[in-house]
Amino acid sequence: MSRKVNFSAGPSTLPKEILEQIRDEIVDFRGEGLSIIEASHRSKVYDDIHSEAISLLREIYKIPEDFEVLLLQGGASLQFAMVPMNLYRGGKVEFVDSGSWSSKAIKEAKIQNINFETIASSKETSYDRIPENIEFSDDLDYAYITSNNTIYGTEYREFPETKSPLVVDASSDILSYQVDWSRVDLLFAGAQKNAGVAGVTVVVARRELIERESSKTPIILRYKTHLDKNSLYNTPPVFAIYTLNLILNWIKSIGGVDEVHRRNQQKAKLLYDTIDSSGGFYVGHADKSSRSLMNVTFNIKNGDGSNNSELEAKFIKEATKLGMVGLKGHRSIGGLRASLYNAMDIDGVKQLTQFMDNFKSKNL
Amino acid sequence: MSRKVNFSAGPSTLPKEILEQIRDEIVDFRGEGLSIIEASHRSKVYDDIHSEAISLLREIYKIPEDFEVLLLQGGASLQFAMVPMNLYRGGKVEFVDSGSWSSKAIKEAKIQNINFETIASSKETSYDRIPENIEFSDDLDYAYITSNNTIYGTEYREFPETKSPLVVDASSDILSYQVDWSRVDLLFAGAQKNAGVAGVTVVVARRELIERESSKTPIILRYKTHLDKNSLYNTPPVFAIYTLNLILNWIKSIGGVDEVHRRNQQKAKLLYDTIDSSGGFYVGHADKSSRSLMNVTFNIKNGDGSNNSELEAKFIKEATKLGMVGLKGHRSIGGLRASLYNAMDIDGVKQLTQFMDNFKSKNL
Repeated sequence: MSRKVNFSAGPSTLPKEILEQIRDEIVDFRGEGLSIIEASHRSKVYDDIHSEAISLLREIYKIPEDFEVLLLQGGASLQFAMVPMNLYRGGKVEFVDSGSWSSKAIKEAKIQNINFETIASSKETSYDRIPENIEFSDDLDYAYITSNNTIYGTEYREFPETKSPLVVDASSDILSYQVDWSRVDLLFAGAQKNAGVAGVTVVVARRELIERESSKTPIILRYKTHLDKNSLYNTPPVFAIYTLNLILNWIKSIGGVDEVHRRNQQKAKLLYDTIDSSGGFYVGHADKSSRSLMNVTFNIKNGDGSNNSELEAKFIKEATKLGMVGLKGHRSIGGLRASLYNAMDIDGVKQLTQFMDNFKSKNL
Repeated sequence: MSRKVNFSAGPSTLPKEILEQIRDEIVDFRGEGLSIIEASHRSKVYDDIHSEAISLLREIYKIPEDFEVLLLQGGASLQFAMVPMNLYRGGKVEFVDSGSWSSKAIKEAKIQNINFETIASSKETSYDRIPENIEFSDDLDYAYITSNNTIYGTEYREFPETKSPLVVDASSDILSYQVDWSRVDLLFAGAQKNAGVAGVTVVVARRELIERESSKTPIILRYKTHLDKNSLYNTPPVFAIYTLNLILNWIKSIGGVDEVHRRNQQKAKLLYDTIDSSGGFYVGHADKSSRSLMNVTFNIKNGDGSNNSELEAKFIKEATKLGMVGLKGHRSIGGLRASLYNAMDIDGVKQLTQFMDNFKSKNL
């Protein structure tokens, strides 16, 4: 079978050369006589990978000196619980609700009985945009945003300025552009979209924010625990960190995060241009001000502006036959979605846009 | 480099044929045109693996109908926190302290302010045995044991009988013998010793014990959350579950858990016999009543019975030269340790025991 063009929202496509490198190394890791997934997490062979992943992440993501990098388990969903457990100090927290993942984070915070407010939401317009004019209070325990919304296809152009510590869930756009760290205090992301495979969660945080020990928080859920042990408090998810390291090396080799960003802009432009020049056959879900470079959400429309779900189903079926998969929109908004994470190359997007043009011609 | 004989305590050796299968499947998974680590966790290709892993585990481990299987993240260390979060109902808990991992579980329970007691401990004899005559109270929220103690090399012969729900940390001996489920109510294990690679935690629990919703527990840390979603509440650790499934298929193919147990007994006997017949040159750490089939801990002795740490260092050095690695004892007790998990074959143990005989002859 020839290789599919995989537009899945995550887990998602990986660079083929990385899959080939895993293939070549998985039985005998670089002449060590064992697989990296068999190596003790206290051995030099693993420790070199672990340290390289952290230092490469610092390097290519330009993480400032006063920030720490943690490699955890449990996905972004565990961070929804860990952030309030570790950062809440009895004051107040403010959230921006820009979609399902923000809502889940809010739900976890609510269970912990923290004093919080949702200061902005785009729920009323089906989360079709990042809420405008976000003004956080100055004295919060923390402010919280979701930088990219996978389901709705919206993304912040820039992070809001605030005097309060800003927490960013960057699960679906980590490493896709250079972050302005002067505006961020804690950023987290599951790795399975832009940073490798499911199973490791990257947390980048200002040291002073996470070095506080909280006596009521379970030891395993304290950032301080993992900080003190360089993310080796318990057995780390070896394969996921190994793959993270391969991805970081790959990003560096192709020119770093800025080059990745340039490519992401190019890919997204190609697809959005195809949508916008379709004469209303394809219509994007997200408001143009908030369009995501990562997840392009769109519908096929009837003449009256309603969604043509029959044609959408046909679109998915025909695309699948041509080897393009993962194009079905999330069940909560339906329609179509193409995820263009770092590892999706321009040729894949060209194949999709050519198909879209053909499909339109045939079904107009 | 020829393949090492890997006695690491975990992560640890895997069957070579499984590494080769991963190698053969990692770029193009069974003709699907993508890697399993690129597949959406909502796709059929992943779901088949996920479901097969759960049903195979039920089959080969003979898990009764009224038990559920959860596949989680965070390792056994997160279970130390999740067990009290989910099972404590304001009553009382009793622990057996048989080593470091029990102590860690007790420490997490303490933080959650539960009413607990350590009813038996072998701390005074350097955890050289499983405490004898364990008598749990009848009306506990739960009773807690660690079935195998990696660091000290001790293991329960059988689980204590109790009317209270029994929780078993089986991280280092899951799937190494057939469990008597009539004595167990919740069993958990990180996968990286006997069930694949680091990154997935198996929880097997009586349904009625884990289906209770706890309004104060974070959603992501409730067993009920994962039960309701068949362990797909959030993105699962795909590669670790894929590897778990390969291991389960491998166990089935070689004759199931009983055959694995027979092999484990054979391997351990060979090594313990070598120790016991060494005339006091090698001396096991664990009391014979409690010897682990998984982790064989021993020292090299001077004539006066003290440990000869110089010879132990020489032993490790020479063994390493011969391709046998992971033999250093845990820093908390020193000495030597050979871990003989399911994937270690008898030839590896023979190589070790022959080396031990030679080493003794040369250094007596």
